[in-house]
Amino acid sequence: MVFRRIFGGKAGSSAYVLDTSLFVNPDARKYFGHTVHDAVVNFLAVAAKAKGIKFYMTPSVVKELKYFAEKELPSFKNIITIKAPSLYELKIPAIIMYKFIDELRSRVNAGLRVSEKFVRDEKTPLEEKLHKLRVQYKESLREGILDSEEDFEVLMLAKEMAATIMTMDQGLVKAAEELGVKCVSIDAFYDHMKEA
Amino acid sequence: MVFRRIFGGKAGSSAYVLDTSLFVNPDARKYFGHTVHDAVVNFLAVAAKAKGIKFYMTPSVVKELKYFAEKELPSFKNIITIKAPSLYELKIPAIIMYKFIDELRSRVNAGLRVSEKFVRDEKTPLEEKLHKLRVQYKESLREGILDSEEDFEVLMLAKEMAATIMTMDQGLVKAAEELGVKCVSIDAFYDHMKEA
Repeated sequence: MVFRRIFGGKAGSSAYVLDTSLFVNPDARKYFGHTVHDAVVNFLAVAAKAKGIKFYMTPSVVKELKYFAEKELPSFKNIITIKAPSLYELKIPAIIMYKFIDELRSRVNAGLRVSEKFVRDEKTPLEEKLHKLRVQYKESLREGILDSEEDFEVLMLAKEMAATIMTMDQGLVKAAEELGVKCVSIDAFYDHMKEA
Repeated sequence: MVFRRIFGGKAGSSAYVLDTSLFVNPDARKYFGHTVHDAVVNFLAVAAKAKGIKFYMTPSVVKELKYFAEKELPSFKNIITIKAPSLYELKIPAIIMYKFIDELRSRVNAGLRVSEKFVRDEKTPLEEKLHKLRVQYKESLREGILDSEEDFEVLMLAKEMAATIMTMDQGLVKAAEELGVKCVSIDAFYDHMKEA
């Protein structure tokens, strides 16, 4: 049981919350398969053998996966437990929200600077300007920060179940670090597999 | 003691956390004075007579007030207590942060739509475009939402001291309502004074 050694060993936990990125991120697909469907099928096959390890997924991540999948996903059977975090019961330290608001304020300002730059730009063709605006605006406002309810739910479910998050999302990793929630990336996970 | 009847009566609390807006918002200035300095002086004069009522202000609100004031502010003496919230000890329900992230995502998208509109606009003069962009971008991303660490500190201090917030800021009012923290606006407060 390679999985048991990895999960029960270094990571020090036997419960994992799976993030959408594990199945849709291009860097992740290379490990489990090139389509979302294949990635889920292959993950389930490996996970089914990993006795003693619990895998969780939030309903909103399931919904995202279904949206991204090319065809109907296979049944998770009892391999992945679907559970939402108890958002009305869980609490977070106020300092976390304080830091988040602080970070956001600089990002909102950065987003405005990006927008101003492209409003001033009279040389670049319109479609190119719009494309660059969207990319740079998203970078300013959303990259490396907890930018979706789905990510927040993953974080809270991991906290609730004292589980480790498997994610490729840097914003989620950063938020998990602040809250003292463990994270493993698919890369670290794959390296462990190769070593095992 | 008009103040004592108002604060100790309907508001049902004898501790108030004062927000910057009370002294700098144009709608508030008409009650206490037309400059920030006058507003503070007049507020202190009235508050000094309101025995049995505690007034709190966060260090960051004091800093903001000093920034906005035309000249050096008078001493708060023992009339206003300066205290920061215990951000490392206080906790907030996870659902609050969840809703905040949800709201933000739509606002970030709205901000991009505003930016795209002005990048596409080839008729309006540049300076006018930039001005409108800044106004509409700020409306999309910051109005009616908890948009600063200072506001969040006011909210948390009120929670910590079981106090009522005196603010004109709609984002702060909304956040206070979600957390069950009491708010009075200067308008309601002034109406009470006239009635008393």
